[in-house]
Amino acid sequence: MLHVGEVADPVIGPGDVLIEVAAAGVNRADISQREGHYPPPAGAPEWLGLEVSGVVSAIGSEVGAVAVGDRVCALLSGGGYAEKVSVPAGQVLKIPENIDLIDAAGLMEVACTVWSNVFLLADLRRGETLLVHGGSSGIGTMSIQLGKAMGARVAVTAGSEAKLAACAELGADILINYNTDDFVARLKAEGPGAHVILDPIGGSYLERNIRALALDGHILNIGNLSGEPGQVNFGVLMMKRGTIHGTSLRARSGAAKAAIVASVGENVWPLVASGQVRPIIDSRLPLDAAPEAHRLMESSAHIGKVLLTVTA
Amino acid sequence: MLHVGEVADPVIGPGDVLIEVAAAGVNRADISQREGHYPPPAGAPEWLGLEVSGVVSAIGSEVGAVAVGDRVCALLSGGGYAEKVSVPAGQVLKIPENIDLIDAAGLMEVACTVWSNVFLLADLRRGETLLVHGGSSGIGTMSIQLGKAMGARVAVTAGSEAKLAACAELGADILINYNTDDFVARLKAEGPGAHVILDPIGGSYLERNIRALALDGHILNIGNLSGEPGQVNFGVLMMKRGTIHGTSLRARSGAAKAAIVASVGENVWPLVASGQVRPIIDSRLPLDAAPEAHRLMESSAHIGKVLLTVTA
Repeated sequence: MLHVGEVADPVIGPGDVLIEVAAAGVNRADISQREGHYPPPAGAPEWLGLEVSGVVSAIGSEVGAVAVGDRVCALLSGGGYAEKVSVPAGQVLKIPENIDLIDAAGLMEVACTVWSNVFLLADLRRGETLLVHGGSSGIGTMSIQLGKAMGARVAVTAGSEAKLAACAELGADILINYNTDDFVARLKAEGPGAHVILDPIGGSYLERNIRALALDGHILNIGNLSGEPGQVNFGVLMMKRGTIHGTSLRARSGAAKAAIVASVGENVWPLVASGQVRPIIDSRLPLDAAPEAHRLMESSAHIGKVLLTVTA
Repeated sequence: MLHVGEVADPVIGPGDVLIEVAAAGVNRADISQREGHYPPPAGAPEWLGLEVSGVVSAIGSEVGAVAVGDRVCALLSGGGYAEKVSVPAGQVLKIPENIDLIDAAGLMEVACTVWSNVFLLADLRRGETLLVHGGSSGIGTMSIQLGKAMGARVAVTAGSEAKLAACAELGADILINYNTDDFVARLKAEGPGAHVILDPIGGSYLERNIRALALDGHILNIGNLSGEPGQVNFGVLMMKRGTIHGTSLRARSGAAKAAIVASVGENVWPLVASGQVRPIIDSRLPLDAAPEAHRLMESSAHIGKVLLTVTA
């Protein structure tokens, strides 16, 4: 059961930043944590929330990159559903001037997840094909924009024509309604297959993901919404020299998170500042409507991010 | 059915080397090809053989790295079961002086496979644990030696105490008889699990390989001797941030093969020249005993490489 309660204000260390939270992003991982399937890593707050936007209200003695009063967003290990958060400075970026303070709460998790997986790990190149399952999700909408900005061809799956229309508006090239269309056949019809597949579905899609893969392709599993084990045909995987990565961001070390955030600041933030990539926000609900926000995400009716506003 | 026949002498292009073959290495892939499961890539000879040793008898006009009369071994796309082979110079290395000409026929496939997978792709580091399934095979005996030479801890599985004794003699640290011992339990008892797993078995081992993996570990599937599909539990794979690679060497481009051979020349050859890494040869049979050599490999009774001698 979700509840709103009182906890002591966070204490900042010499390398930390204290943020007065404007809004928190809602993520699938929050739902898993609420259900007891995804306990927070050691040292993280016990309450939910993996990303926030807000204003810096204090900095530790070693922090130089941001100052009190700066508008920032942050990648957290937990604790974002709150009025204040303390976070290592390496996990904080200033918000580009053209981006709304609240909307920025929906940037960090998707930018870090998509950038670290699709570009840093799988090394998607210009002219290659990226397949994104769930193209209208927060992760999906960021993947389409980043894929197009980096010169890739982007294929998406989604469950309705309205969601596919939203993907098309963001630049997706190949639109696949998974209720009526076979993504393997579509990818094969459109070219050599997918060089990179970003997949939150997991087990039930694995065998088809392998068949949809191009030579030397990468499958990036960032979730297992299907709840099922996956099946690997090694004859096909070896012939394609395919790679299957299981990844997650939250349990990585502070140093690893800081390296990803720095790379996002260097590579993604200029695209945000120029307007080429923007946060796609489905809804804003007040913090005490978190149960409703979770029900919305569980319904999969949303397109883009669901945010919880703390100060309006 | 295997047969010995007459074909025209190979013609060399400006970048090729003609080798009078001393011996050819026998590989599992030869058996698959004989059975019709593994056709040669476009442009390769139709007859068997992925590696040879011998003496250079002619070079193309653009070849500078080797000269007529040099003792060499070569990585081939096919055609090694023969008196002469033509091969791009990038796939040829001079044999270190301390290595017997015939024995050198057993070096190239295993050195290139182990080096490119375990070190170039999975980036095994000093102090990490390498698990090799089939420790007494040609691939296995090279893996143990290279793993130890590079400062890793090496665990092996094999099906008999005699094979495990051979692995121990080469330096293997953790000996696991797969008929009596559970490799997952052994790896977990010995530390954080395997950082890299080199596996020719495939499907039937996948679920256990994932459980035996350390955080950020890599499973390298270079074969599917089990003939079965594999099962992935994504909850475990994601928690471990594990990677599963399906790889094969033969169908790679000439440029990709040359890059691997060059890296082997730079990194593995000095270890061979110093005696730290050596070819482990189970048997030498004459070329016309190829059927017997294949039966020996299919029996899995061998320890190390099986060679076919052309000139004795």
